[in-house]
Amino acid sequence: MIDLYTWTTPNGRKVSIMLEEVGLPYEVHPINIGKGEQFAPAFLKISPNNRIPAIVDRDGDGGPVSLFESGAILIYLAEKTGKFLAPKGEQRAKALEWLMWQMGGIGPMLGQANHFINAAPEKIPYAIDRYVNEGVRLLKVLDKRLGEAAFMGGDYSIADIATYPWVSAALPMIEKSKPELGGETANVKRWLEAVGARPAVQRGMAIPKV
Amino acid sequence: MIDLYTWTTPNGRKVSIMLEEVGLPYEVHPINIGKGEQFAPAFLKISPNNRIPAIVDRDGDGGPVSLFESGAILIYLAEKTGKFLAPKGEQRAKALEWLMWQMGGIGPMLGQANHFINAAPEKIPYAIDRYVNEGVRLLKVLDKRLGEAAFMGGDYSIADIATYPWVSAALPMIEKSKPELGGETANVKRWLEAVGARPAVQRGMAIPKV
Repeated sequence: MIDLYTWTTPNGRKVSIMLEEVGLPYEVHPINIGKGEQFAPAFLKISPNNRIPAIVDRDGDGGPVSLFESGAILIYLAEKTGKFLAPKGEQRAKALEWLMWQMGGIGPMLGQANHFINAAPEKIPYAIDRYVNEGVRLLKVLDKRLGEAAFMGGDYSIADIATYPWVSAALPMIEKSKPELGGETANVKRWLEAVGARPAVQRGMAIPKV
Repeated sequence: MIDLYTWTTPNGRKVSIMLEEVGLPYEVHPINIGKGEQFAPAFLKISPNNRIPAIVDRDGDGGPVSLFESGAILIYLAEKTGKFLAPKGEQRAKALEWLMWQMGGIGPMLGQANHFINAAPEKIPYAIDRYVNEGVRLLKVLDKRLGEAAFMGGDYSIADIATYPWVSAALPMIEKSKPELGGETANVKRWLEAVGARPAVQRGMAIPKV
């Protein structure tokens, strides 16, 4: 049994999608970040960075394993089950590079765009432009990749599972700021439809129920 | 033989440190990002995100393998050589979670702090505060972790190799903005000294020679 500590955010949904895809039994523990529940001492012991998602695998190799960081959890679950990450070779390399591209680019930069568009107490045009432009750049890189391959790593993998919750939420936000981007995301939209049609993705995107 | 495409940045240095640590032969190809060389079509074929570092492993499993994203390159080289990433168990899980913490937090957020402190054409107090405060938060998380373990993943691993070039450059910058942080980074400083004393780290930090 896996304990999943999560909330209704793209990083949380990466892990609930993965758990639905691999079919491992898990128990959801909602951590309401709007109420600051990520700062509770019991949660800090599992997630020293005070962020969701985190898991505890009660059946880890050699005892319970606790893990934070969505990207590390995806690799852990892929290696535990042998699913959605090839064990070696070019398919593995490609899935890991695009997973890292999500972790270091799509997540943090679209997160900053969202902050300056929707959350910051003042409108700062320089910062909005900076992150919207980076979002446009990243979405064009993704569109080019998805013009060459059906999925980010070639086959459907943890790279797609990591990127789908971010891009499905952020594409409308970025296109609203830059309507001219719309003509350059046909491959991204085809991929969003294909990934979003998977029953496990639909179930994972609905977790946690609040 | 491995071709390394890199520049004098923390992300580039992660890979030159790793190549020095594992002892694989490699050839350095400097990509001067100050002159825009990362936009050359030949480089784009290797690195579709237009960023350094990237590698081509001429002796890949089943043929040459090209790879971008520093974190993916570190995992690839660790798995190719069996060094600095345990093959399974808790040591592997811990190294990967702290590697991802670097990829999603330390790198992007300290990068934004550097941008708004040193590079942006206007001083924007809200943005400077936002990223300096996040830098302080992340450095405190790291200091706490390094109070519990000698290295980020327990043993010296690709998590330390990924984080050292960023923190060695950014700690002075953040402490200049928040001098009061100085009293809370004793573990980080002990770790910086230990990692920085490794001959392979010293050689890797000097690459590329320009």
